[in-house]
Amino acid sequence: MSETWFVEKHTPYAGLTLAVKARLYDARSPFQRIEVLDTHEYGRTLVLDGCVMLTDRDEFIYHEMIVHPALLCHPNPERVAIVGGGDGGSVREALKHPQVQSVHLVEIDPMVIEVSKKFFPALSGGLDDPRVEVHFADGFSHLEVRPHTYDVILVDSIDPKGEAAKLFSPSFFERAKGALRQGGILVQQTESPFYDAWVVLQVVSGQKALFRNVAAFLAFIPTYPSGLWSFSFASDAVNPRTAQLRTDLPFLSALKYFTPEIFRAAFTLPAFLLEGLRQPTRK
Amino acid sequence: MSETWFVEKHTPYAGLTLAVKARLYDARSPFQRIEVLDTHEYGRTLVLDGCVMLTDRDEFIYHEMIVHPALLCHPNPERVAIVGGGDGGSVREALKHPQVQSVHLVEIDPMVIEVSKKFFPALSGGLDDPRVEVHFADGFSHLEVRPHTYDVILVDSIDPKGEAAKLFSPSFFERAKGALRQGGILVQQTESPFYDAWVVLQVVSGQKALFRNVAAFLAFIPTYPSGLWSFSFASDAVNPRTAQLRTDLPFLSALKYFTPEIFRAAFTLPAFLLEGLRQPTRK
Repeated sequence: MSETWFVEKHTPYAGLTLAVKARLYDARSPFQRIEVLDTHEYGRTLVLDGCVMLTDRDEFIYHEMIVHPALLCHPNPERVAIVGGGDGGSVREALKHPQVQSVHLVEIDPMVIEVSKKFFPALSGGLDDPRVEVHFADGFSHLEVRPHTYDVILVDSIDPKGEAAKLFSPSFFERAKGALRQGGILVQQTESPFYDAWVVLQVVSGQKALFRNVAAFLAFIPTYPSGLWSFSFASDAVNPRTAQLRTDLPFLSALKYFTPEIFRAAFTLPAFLLEGLRQPTRK
Repeated sequence: MSETWFVEKHTPYAGLTLAVKARLYDARSPFQRIEVLDTHEYGRTLVLDGCVMLTDRDEFIYHEMIVHPALLCHPNPERVAIVGGGDGGSVREALKHPQVQSVHLVEIDPMVIEVSKKFFPALSGGLDDPRVEVHFADGFSHLEVRPHTYDVILVDSIDPKGEAAKLFSPSFFERAKGALRQGGILVQQTESPFYDAWVVLQVVSGQKALFRNVAAFLAFIPTYPSGLWSFSFASDAVNPRTAQLRTDLPFLSALKYFTPEIFRAAFTLPAFLLEGLRQPTRK
């Protein structure tokens, strides 16, 4: 039995630890350190700058929950942009929707895509689909020059640190809004509401200044900090609390986390987060 | 800064790690090893046989969610039994309900209560309330000789290992049913649906053989294995999916996790758990 243990500190004082069978890959790109670990409990695990991005065993939860809410609420999601998400998991889920004609994957780091193609074929398989265009760019610049282009924008980013911090700023939300076609929907990952409720607050309040409907929703992801994760849903046209969800797509019955009922329940926030979202904003 | 780290292996290959300021207590009772750690991130932490039972910072979630669903669904919860829960957290929440006239705390290990009184005053404060009777007994034997006694029974137990395993057996469910008064409700903690879905399945299917309404519900608890936790709700009289919840009690607005909307949403299960509950049972 392996006695090598990976530790990710979710805070300076608390973390997740996983027994490692083998370190399959470890390199530095111009943007970050990229590791692939083979873990006993969660299978292959992608680690960027020390943070678990995904594991074979629980990646389905994050990817189903960042993609399907927007794509099932939009009446005709033809054009999708995914900011970050170079592993391909969100692309895979988006391609399940028959209305989707084009997916732009906007990933700043080509090495993440290479590594995913090599080590995570179940995630990256869709990247070679003819509907997918990969753009090696930062999402901020990419969206700036594409007005009224997308029906759905999904921000599948890393934590709001360093370069990624600007993806959580009002000026990014403005660019995202400008890049949406009429009826468009923006969904963005917003960190752990238990450890980092300020991120949820900052994104939701920033987006409320721009979009008619903004709501946070939740999913449970065991390998992410605190196990509880959050996303924001923003749209002028679609209110997720009253939206008619398409439920006639055959792939839905094969999903492992998402159900139409989970979609409804996910927008129900625990009292501590409701309270946090009532705080005065930092703006 | 402390470099002492506590590790709880949630499985042989994955776990939680917490930085420890000080070990405040460490002793063996006739039943188990009892430790109290002072942790940087979660405050004081009660550890039984190496498993985190509660922490100052997140105990509110477990205790609000094991207590209030049953007590708010029951039209007049006068008599409550709590099996396990010697820390007092469930007693504290039950005493918030003005209809409650008596709480029997059935804890097998007197040392857990002593330790909680010394180190967790915010949890154990209610144990001296005149409505509370502490019985040092195992829940199995206690309920056996108290037919038609309780309006609500809450099984706030440790994991189904060793002596506690029988609390997850059909013969325990029969005794619990026999100890309920007409209209009674049984709520039981049923472990992580991610790591141990078999426990949810075993309890839900075992209780379905005895009760008209049985449903699993979920809460997010960061320091418990996988961060997702489950409970079963069983009652002949009350269907939790359609129950009228009392919402007029002033303490409700001060809860930090539970809301009436969270109660409704908590019964929505992710697809993987729905699928698990459709498996043939072990019975």
